[in-house]
Amino acid sequence: MSIAEVLAVGTELLLGQVLDTNSQFLSDELARLGIDCYYHTTVGDNKRRVGNLLKTALSRSEIVITSGGLGPTPDDLTMECIAEVMGAEMVMDEKILEVIRSFFSERGIVMPENNEKQALRPSGADLLPNPTGTAPGIIWTITPERLKEAGIESVPELKSKNRYIMTFPGVPSELKNMWATTVVDFLQSKIVGAAIFSVELKHFGIGESALAEKYADLLAGRNPTVAPYAGNGECRLRVTGKSDDMANAREMVAPLVAAIQERSGNYCYGLDNSTLESVVGDLLKSQGLMISSAESCTGGLLSKRLTDVAGSSEYISLNVVTYSNQAKQSVLGVSEKILNEFGAVSPECAEAMARGVRKISGADIGIGITGVAGPSGGTEEKPVGLVYLGLAMGDTYVGKKLSLPARLGRTEIRHRTANEALNMVRLQLLERVNVNV
Amino acid sequence: MSIAEVLAVGTELLLGQVLDTNSQFLSDELARLGIDCYYHTTVGDNKRRVGNLLKTALSRSEIVITSGGLGPTPDDLTMECIAEVMGAEMVMDEKILEVIRSFFSERGIVMPENNEKQALRPSGADLLPNPTGTAPGIIWTITPERLKEAGIESVPELKSKNRYIMTFPGVPSELKNMWATTVVDFLQSKIVGAAIFSVELKHFGIGESALAEKYADLLAGRNPTVAPYAGNGECRLRVTGKSDDMANAREMVAPLVAAIQERSGNYCYGLDNSTLESVVGDLLKSQGLMISSAESCTGGLLSKRLTDVAGSSEYISLNVVTYSNQAKQSVLGVSEKILNEFGAVSPECAEAMARGVRKISGADIGIGITGVAGPSGGTEEKPVGLVYLGLAMGDTYVGKKLSLPARLGRTEIRHRTANEALNMVRLQLLERVNVNV
Repeated sequence: MSIAEVLAVGTELLLGQVLDTNSQFLSDELARLGIDCYYHTTVGDNKRRVGNLLKTALSRSEIVITSGGLGPTPDDLTMECIAEVMGAEMVMDEKILEVIRSFFSERGIVMPENNEKQALRPSGADLLPNPTGTAPGIIWTITPERLKEAGIESVPELKSKNRYIMTFPGVPSELKNMWATTVVDFLQSKIVGAAIFSVELKHFGIGESALAEKYADLLAGRNPTVAPYAGNGECRLRVTGKSDDMANAREMVAPLVAAIQERSGNYCYGLDNSTLESVVGDLLKSQGLMISSAESCTGGLLSKRLTDVAGSSEYISLNVVTYSNQAKQSVLGVSEKILNEFGAVSPECAEAMARGVRKISGADIGIGITGVAGPSGGTEEKPVGLVYLGLAMGDTYVGKKLSLPARLGRTEIRHRTANEALNMVRLQLLERVNVNV
Repeated sequence: MSIAEVLAVGTELLLGQVLDTNSQFLSDELARLGIDCYYHTTVGDNKRRVGNLLKTALSRSEIVITSGGLGPTPDDLTMECIAEVMGAEMVMDEKILEVIRSFFSERGIVMPENNEKQALRPSGADLLPNPTGTAPGIIWTITPERLKEAGIESVPELKSKNRYIMTFPGVPSELKNMWATTVVDFLQSKIVGAAIFSVELKHFGIGESALAEKYADLLAGRNPTVAPYAGNGECRLRVTGKSDDMANAREMVAPLVAAIQERSGNYCYGLDNSTLESVVGDLLKSQGLMISSAESCTGGLLSKRLTDVAGSSEYISLNVVTYSNQAKQSVLGVSEKILNEFGAVSPECAEAMARGVRKISGADIGIGITGVAGPSGGTEEKPVGLVYLGLAMGDTYVGKKLSLPARLGRTEIRHRTANEALNMVRLQLLERVNVNV
């Protein structure tokens, strides 16, 4: 097990102006590779403090990953600090200078002189290409002898180990791209000494502890490993296989993934980057169906999430947000009787909304959502967090009642309601497949 | 200028399962109080590493703020580590134990034995109450002598200074609440030795450097200070006054805020926690107007943001997402001629959408949005990022064309489009006030 740590460099982070999401991304990726991460540290654009931290990091960790401080301004001093700590010269990479120059000239701009600096790197360090930006990084392999030469004391456990410094710009999209295109391979071949392949199985409608209990037998496995994660109102199981080569690692993981999918049934909604909305989109496309939603308390959130998916115009023609009773009546044809007798927050109204929007849009599926998102508007009978969902499709109608805790607050109540609506659609479309088979 | 640092404790952070937002919040708050923050460090639930970090932090910073590790499980060891580093006993606070017990009994649950632990704190430390959760924190004032006694070496600059340890649970809402109710006062009275009051002026439609240039004369001021910040597609100017008492600090800040509002004119859309959508909501309410939107490329995002604001049912009755040409025709009455001659992405269509939705909703203001959000669907003539906005109100019609760079991507293109739509409404409503006056 190798040990890594992450240094985020930038005064804007210490002033609270920018949220650091890179450290989380890097940690998650390191965990996937079975590399331990013991520290994240954030430090400002200060030469002495960055230098001291680098020394500490190199003494106690094998892999030191930095983000930020690679820009063209005098503030950007990560590379300089690394060179200084290692007692190395900065050398100009003429090829990189050419790449940076052409990055500008392609955009019809003369390269500012400042940017020359981005082609400098410590002598001995290898290039870490940045396909989408001007600031490349480095991957530097440092032997124990070289570390000692630089005057850096190692902790006893790591005395005989190489060190690796990897630098990234702070821009998250560039960092992710550089990670995927170069670093994963490097870490697998040079450090982990194995190919690692992992798949995440995303679950909805089951809690983390229930999931862990259900898969207690698998969680004890050593290779592939199975580990549960929770966050953002859903649970994931990550299956990770380790082997000499990638094809083998994939082969080890595949049957376990299939077995979990089988055992989880409809709790498992997809793999890796799937979202509830993307899975619903795929099901709609494959079945050639159109969907249409009528929202009240979620105010357009469901529509927004459905259309977050690129290409969603294939299965969405019309969604409406009928916030007032009047709009529910005039646009969706919800009857006055329903509104007077049961109220807007009622199973009857959710049903009329779902059927109504299906009718006016001509879609195959109509969704109705009505509830109390809060913070005000709740009553003893209909408290904040009470939501009714309806799904109309052909001769089928499915209704659902949610009683969410008011303390979750407006945003979370709306988010979870949209999750439940998407999941209702998913389950309905899956059932349809099964019936047709 | 005092020096603080932030320690986030939790293995889930180092595994990338949870994004740390507390460090950003704390840094922003420290900056407002004029307290420097030199480091954020994240460490796992490991006694030795937490202990070592605490020692390092206490040696180099006056204020050490921890988040996380106050829960009831054996993993939660922040308090224990602090006691150990300081060579202090853990003592049971019977009053707190009672508070925690009643927290459970009010919810009809017997307190699990584990939770007793949360009433323990190092002898000598004061309580930092947690009004919304079971885990209170501590504020511990440590004299230079006491620090020495604990065997912790101070950096020379801070040898004669007190140290302050403050602990918070990791739950962001609890941390924020504890900060606001207890810590701000403590820091102002005990550490800053002054009352600090700051106001943020939020700007839209002007870039950070233009803003800095416009206010170059003010940025040099010492008290109150004026500082520009950028992030999330908008700019802010923060005015901070420092005085013996809060009333004075407020008085110092107020005229400068008024002067900036005057000079910025409509670029400044609000103060502190205002958002474009909340400001639009306030204007609509004060003018007694209703709004209605017809979205295509934003797919419900504008509706979602308008209804993010609690109480928005006062000014919203109906919004529609007409994604297909057919829906634009049948629901909004956009003519076939417009769609055939100019296409769905055209100023003509945006206008017909705005007028159409105003008509069917009976609202005072109708908004139309149509464009190409990408990633596909762009043509040479109508590339990804081309968006037309329309606002219809009484006899007034205002149209706007956006040419956003395609490289921003679908999410950001939609976000910026919604920003522009909200800003159009804001400017229109402001103009109306001015005309009426």
